[in-house]
Amino acid sequence: MKLSKLVGVRFKEKPAFCVIDSHTYSLRGGYVKRVSNGIFSLYTPMKKVTQNIEKILREEMDGVDCQEVMFPVVLPGALWEESGRYESVGEELLRFKDRNDTPMVLGMTHEEAAVHLAREYGSTYANYPFAFYQIQTKYRDEARPRAGLIRVREFTMKDAYSFHTSQEDLEKYYDRMANAYDRIFERAGIPDVISVKSDSGMIGGSVSHEYMLLTDAGEDSIALCDDCGYSANMEAAETTVDNSGCTPAGELKKVYTPDCKTIEDVCAFLKSKVEESCKAVVYQINATDEYVVVFIRGDYEVNETKLVNYLHEEVHPAEITEESGLVAGFCGPYEQHGNCRIVYDKSLEGIENLCCGGNETNYHYTGLNIKRDIGDVEYVDVSKIRDGDICPCCGKKTIRISRGIEVGNIFQLGTKYSDSMKMTYTDEDGSSKTPIMGCYGIGVGRLAASIMEARHDDKGPIWPITVAPWKVHVCCMRRDDDACREAADKIYEELTNMGVEVIYDDRDVRAGVMFADADLLGVPVRVIVGPKALANGEIELCTRDKSVQLSVKKEDIIAETKKLMDSLYEEINSKVKSRI
Amino acid sequence: MKLSKLVGVRFKEKPAFCVIDSHTYSLRGGYVKRVSNGIFSLYTPMKKVTQNIEKILREEMDGVDCQEVMFPVVLPGALWEESGRYESVGEELLRFKDRNDTPMVLGMTHEEAAVHLAREYGSTYANYPFAFYQIQTKYRDEARPRAGLIRVREFTMKDAYSFHTSQEDLEKYYDRMANAYDRIFERAGIPDVISVKSDSGMIGGSVSHEYMLLTDAGEDSIALCDDCGYSANMEAAETTVDNSGCTPAGELKKVYTPDCKTIEDVCAFLKSKVEESCKAVVYQINATDEYVVVFIRGDYEVNETKLVNYLHEEVHPAEITEESGLVAGFCGPYEQHGNCRIVYDKSLEGIENLCCGGNETNYHYTGLNIKRDIGDVEYVDVSKIRDGDICPCCGKKTIRISRGIEVGNIFQLGTKYSDSMKMTYTDEDGSSKTPIMGCYGIGVGRLAASIMEARHDDKGPIWPITVAPWKVHVCCMRRDDDACREAADKIYEELTNMGVEVIYDDRDVRAGVMFADADLLGVPVRVIVGPKALANGEIELCTRDKSVQLSVKKEDIIAETKKLMDSLYEEINSKVKSRI
Repeated sequence: MKLSKLVGVRFKEKPAFCVIDSHTYSLRGGYVKRVSNGIFSLYTPMKKVTQNIEKILREEMDGVDCQEVMFPVVLPGALWEESGRYESVGEELLRFKDRNDTPMVLGMTHEEAAVHLAREYGSTYANYPFAFYQIQTKYRDEARPRAGLIRVREFTMKDAYSFHTSQEDLEKYYDRMANAYDRIFERAGIPDVISVKSDSGMIGGSVSHEYMLLTDAGEDSIALCDDCGYSANMEAAETTVDNSGCTPAGELKKVYTPDCKTIEDVCAFLKSKVEESCKAVVYQINATDEYVVVFIRGDYEVNETKLVNYLHEEVHPAEITEESGLVAGFCGPYEQHGNCRIVYDKSLEGIENLCCGGNETNYHYTGLNIKRDIGDVEYVDVSKIRDGDICPCCGKKTIRISRGIEVGNIFQLGTKYSDSMKMTYTDEDGSSKTPIMGCYGIGVGRLAASIMEARHDDKGPIWPITVAPWKVHVCCMRRDDDACREAADKIYEELTNMGVEVIYDDRDVRAGVMFADADLLGVPVRVIVGPKALANGEIELCTRDKSVQLSVKKEDIIAETKKLMDSLYEEINSKVKSRI
Repeated sequence: MKLSKLVGVRFKEKPAFCVIDSHTYSLRGGYVKRVSNGIFSLYTPMKKVTQNIEKILREEMDGVDCQEVMFPVVLPGALWEESGRYESVGEELLRFKDRNDTPMVLGMTHEEAAVHLAREYGSTYANYPFAFYQIQTKYRDEARPRAGLIRVREFTMKDAYSFHTSQEDLEKYYDRMANAYDRIFERAGIPDVISVKSDSGMIGGSVSHEYMLLTDAGEDSIALCDDCGYSANMEAAETTVDNSGCTPAGELKKVYTPDCKTIEDVCAFLKSKVEESCKAVVYQINATDEYVVVFIRGDYEVNETKLVNYLHEEVHPAEITEESGLVAGFCGPYEQHGNCRIVYDKSLEGIENLCCGGNETNYHYTGLNIKRDIGDVEYVDVSKIRDGDICPCCGKKTIRISRGIEVGNIFQLGTKYSDSMKMTYTDEDGSSKTPIMGCYGIGVGRLAASIMEARHDDKGPIWPITVAPWKVHVCCMRRDDDACREAADKIYEELTNMGVEVIYDDRDVRAGVMFADADLLGVPVRVIVGPKALANGEIELCTRDKSVQLSVKKEDIIAETKKLMDSLYEEINSKVKSRI
């Protein structure tokens, strides 16, 4: 392809609203164009990158006996009613009515459609296990789309679904799929993606893993232990607090604490440790408005997802009214009035001498001993794990909180969908049973943006050769120099005839513009045909990241280019092979 | 792929609601599953067929310098307001609001999105001409989806858009695209598709062509002349009526015509020819309810699209009220009262002695001579052309009306979208100009179904090898026979290792079931490994349509299979090559 003919514009200025580099380069490099909030058109370079990613996805899915199918984007609401998600999912599920007033939705995931497709084939045990996938457009009506292709409303996704007759069989397949995922990220040039244990959220199911690309630009937090290799997302990372060695039990006293708005104020005023304080965080259950008071150690925060998972109810921060019986800012577990649910976070367990709210304005208790003064309570883990906390796996104080982008996920769904949608099969003994499911997703556009985020310098992306929109970028430095133009034309033609995907900068522009554009397109191998070197019978060959820079004899340029390409492929493939 | 592992079910009974064969076989062969009215999931065999079609589309689009991009499915209503289509398109455009109450639509075509994407790149003459395409999901909220994948609500479409600085340049590109289209249908195994001149309808523009697969199962009608090769769709086919030799002018008389409800009744009662009668067909304009009375020769019908194109207004059949001043059933052009628009169809031109409504219940006129009694009127062609009518091209009475399925279309859009959306470019002389556009569509699923419709027998589809889901179908006739199973396993393995796409029936089922399934899957080359022939060292090799049936020596089966495949490819490719 000739660059002079490539539709799209590239520019120099970083748009002010871009907060991460992949967003900046997506726009500056002519990869995408915003159509609406979180909705983009893709220009040819990005279309090519996503196609290369899709090819890897197809090969790896085929490799685990997963069959390609296709579900609709527009689905009948009735299908989502079968699973209960028509009601339970929030506003991110786009609901509308067709011309006949039939409720429809835009598919944001396809578990329901998968069960619908599998029902007949999956009616006998003999056909199990089986799995299929699609690569198709999805829509999620995000409240806050952001960061270019990282968090959008419309996206292309590879989603796979597997069906099993036993948990063991699901687990076996889950492991195969996990291995395929590792291969996918390696082949896509980001082998540094890690798999973290995660909370299953809206999709449902028990065991699940997220694939995280660790980067400061990520919007997710992950708890890692560099010592033992433990990793989990914040919802799944169990907080372990060591309260041994704290102050022994004392006398329970109500004390006057004027003008103390926060637990830190109180502790400073009373000269006590925040680590021996108990603060209250108040929520309300969305469905009923019932109050939920979480008591937690003063220096910890509540992880709302953990709380929601424990309650099996969605919550929002409370609006404390007079009628509630709660004293805003002074809630405490002792002689607490008001009609509400109480949750004790595990971080309080083992503290014998607590400072806490007095349930009266401007008063706190000191010396509270929960076991002695309140009795046996159930402690639940609803707190946010922190940097330096105890690793739940190896027990050392090694937890590190990292930022990451979720580039894929795998779920053991169990029977959530097969049960609710009444999918059954006849087992060998004639009995009717419910199949067990798994599901496995990778967002194509987000993966493309994540690769850009992980592989770039200050001039643009450095595409891994496997996903690069073109493999070789030929620059003709002087269009008006006959020798230079003819040599460049010939290289372009020869490589193209060999089946190499080449972008050829055939424009009559300054070297600065030419190289800036080449950097923005991020093609891994570059051939620079300049008049001076050419006069000496030489042509420049380099990689986008400049780790290779060669002066090659004119007659060797095709062979050397091919060799350089091969070595870049080999670099990636050797890692993939070493995995098997 | 092993057939025992293929997700989907095949069955024998024709579903009662299937009116065309491709719909029947789509369901019976496990190709698609209905999810909602006009919305289908695709099982693996259909997904493979559509992917093979998409590959052909990509290669042919790339061949005419068309670049692949991707537009969103969900588009902001504001973009469609720019072109005016947010208002002008009917209910088939699905409109809804997102969570922020912003009006959105589901893309049914992408002219607006194309202009949006091209605006910056297309701002200078130097970048013209250029063209791009996408293969993406579309949604059209059809009132009456029917015939399986032929007329659906959600579909995958290849849509291309080209941009030009002159009409000549558009026409040059339009011809290249038309040639690419011919190649596409040839490569897809339906070279009998014809290109017909068509009305541009909702898309807009002046010159356009539809690509029609002629089949009785089609829902469109086409006017053809077998003599001179003329072809046009009904909206574009000009009706020519020869009224020479009709009765000379006579006296205008009002006559009593009791109990005559139709023009045929009147003519029978008056013993006059229907060919010398004038009937009235009354419409109302959608926007204003204004009446439109079409006077047309008694034996012709109005083509509503022609009428709408003439009026530049949408219409519906009139509800004639008392206030209208029209006398239902007795409208005539002479002394016609009532506030309405009058349209004279060309079929009346030249008749000197007409019978027509008397504008009074139970009365007609005879002897009406429009020129003498009414004056000079404008005659317009709004009638439906009929079998045996005069060919507008060669002038012979050779018109034949045929049924067909529209499998593609190409439009010269002109400046309809660039004008309304204010897309401009700076020309060489510095002046600001409006680019000229073309657009070019092919529905992927409809094409797949059309191939099935054109290429099947009474047992299932006969896929052309280019689009077939697999190229070779290996049947192991006796799973329990060691020699038979081992031979079949080996053939499957060897062909697969050679890169041939093979479906292998490895099931322990009766021969009848095995062949019925093979016929439904329609794979072009079949290898039948049976114990008897094998005992003689032979294996059966045949084509799906049985035009080739060979007994091949066991040791030659791979080479002979490859040879047969090659000949099937060659059969198609030779036609494509002969075109260039």
